[in-house]
Amino acid sequence: MINSPLCELVGIEYPVFQGGMAWISDGRLAAAVSNAGGLGIISAMNAGADYLKGEIAKARSLTSRPFGVNIMLMSPHADEVAKVVVEERVPVVTTGAGSPSKYMSAWKEAGITVIPVVASVASAKLAVRAGADAVIAEGQESGGHIGELTTMALTPQVCDAVDVPVLAAGGIGDGRGMAAAFMLGACGVQMGTRFLVAKECGVHQNYKDMVLRASDISTVTTGRRFGGNTCRCIKNAFSRDFLKREYQPETTAEDVANLGVGALYRAAVEGDTKTGCFLAGQISGLVSREETAEEIVHGVCAECESILMGSQKWLR
Amino acid sequence: MINSPLCELVGIEYPVFQGGMAWISDGRLAAAVSNAGGLGIISAMNAGADYLKGEIAKARSLTSRPFGVNIMLMSPHADEVAKVVVEERVPVVTTGAGSPSKYMSAWKEAGITVIPVVASVASAKLAVRAGADAVIAEGQESGGHIGELTTMALTPQVCDAVDVPVLAAGGIGDGRGMAAAFMLGACGVQMGTRFLVAKECGVHQNYKDMVLRASDISTVTTGRRFGGNTCRCIKNAFSRDFLKREYQPETTAEDVANLGVGALYRAAVEGDTKTGCFLAGQISGLVSREETAEEIVHGVCAECESILMGSQKWLR
Repeated sequence: MINSPLCELVGIEYPVFQGGMAWISDGRLAAAVSNAGGLGIISAMNAGADYLKGEIAKARSLTSRPFGVNIMLMSPHADEVAKVVVEERVPVVTTGAGSPSKYMSAWKEAGITVIPVVASVASAKLAVRAGADAVIAEGQESGGHIGELTTMALTPQVCDAVDVPVLAAGGIGDGRGMAAAFMLGACGVQMGTRFLVAKECGVHQNYKDMVLRASDISTVTTGRRFGGNTCRCIKNAFSRDFLKREYQPETTAEDVANLGVGALYRAAVEGDTKTGCFLAGQISGLVSREETAEEIVHGVCAECESILMGSQKWLR
Repeated sequence: MINSPLCELVGIEYPVFQGGMAWISDGRLAAAVSNAGGLGIISAMNAGADYLKGEIAKARSLTSRPFGVNIMLMSPHADEVAKVVVEERVPVVTTGAGSPSKYMSAWKEAGITVIPVVASVASAKLAVRAGADAVIAEGQESGGHIGELTTMALTPQVCDAVDVPVLAAGGIGDGRGMAAAFMLGACGVQMGTRFLVAKECGVHQNYKDMVLRASDISTVTTGRRFGGNTCRCIKNAFSRDFLKREYQPETTAEDVANLGVGALYRAAVEGDTKTGCFLAGQISGLVSREETAEEIVHGVCAECESILMGSQKWLR
């Protein structure tokens, strides 16, 4: 078994979080990951209180284990869902796209373990100063909204800068990546892309197939031109068209923001391989089969364990 | 001591390569790294046969240990320097920016160990089919010319695709990164940025200071717009101006190519902090002191060893 302080901190068996993914990680997937001994995380995405309450109820009907909610701080409903997690006494909250400072005292008072996703040393320090219990250092090899630093460069620099547990995310799809994360100083990992193809994940089959068929070079980043909104997704007609328009001289930041509207819904719910935006990480090329959440959590951890046990072969 | 098949393959004590860096890694730095038990590598850069012969002679006057030459295949003098390494019986050749297929038979006949730098699974496979003895999987967190994949995502995918030893490069600046590389399936590492600040490195002190003072977010990538020529360098007036011009509507690919002319010389030789292009990796934020090549090689390996020895703490 893997021994990590993260397990004690959030009450889980395996130091593996399932990343919050809008339109993808709902109550059912989160419960499956939590039942497997990891930490399942419901994405509050851009939805309001009712959606989140429904997914929390669904998760609770399927597991008695701890799970988390991911709150995207740029969501127009952030204030609302920030209250829901308090009312519902959700054990763990992860945050993305901003600093959770304004909600921190309410969350800490409610006994919530708060774990922001950070993309730089400065944002890690800011989160810890605000009261974060741990941070997730997420590299730009991740799918979805990303920063600039990679997992390999970011993780040790964040570990040097803060005195709370650090999880690594981005580019981790198997036990090798998990073992590497430990070496870099992390005490756990968060995976998104690998859980996207879990059998319990209700995303459209076409989305899963896009990931399963992807190679190492199948992803691309959009939204770099005007900054602050870079997204990693799988190359398709949508992303090609997006990039073409993004770099047309007359295109404005507002045009770019509008280009993405509805595209994730078309991918995740409708499975539209042409006009959908299929967010996924660079590790997609390594993700080649659909498995249950339990097979994923246990398989990744068993591989990591075996690599760690064998690591003495590098010494003489 | 660290035990790796790479040591036997190239006749070194520590599985650590010093990356080829134009205007930076000359015969003196290469000899210092080789004397420390790693593999020093002379950059043939864009220079001709005479320059390379001079640096090889300098290295041989300073070390009796094996060293390497890095050949940038896009160099106008590639054919010429490809002959020099044969005449001089250089033990190891690493290559960048293309496929070394056309030189492979001459090099192998001369007993040279050929180790191409690759940025994708396809280029790794191509290199091995052409006869490469090993490959260096280099992530985009590296300084200088880069691809798209990160070290964390690239290394395991390359390891799955080829049956030769794989080194990891990009984002590796200490023993943590080296231990992580082993976990990902690599049997050694290549570091550039960390060796740039070696005491034996003759680069201008202003260049070293730029790296030593850098934070995690101090690098930026230029040359993405027209593809094929992306470079990671430290943010300064040069890079800001480059990016501004690169994304002006009327700018052509040729304009962008011209923007960089002479900029690396101005950085490395003249130390011009305003108009120079200071190539460096995202790990710069972690590189905080000038040390001898021996202190670097031994320090990184000792830290890696200690992490590997302690890795059983993750198991219970």
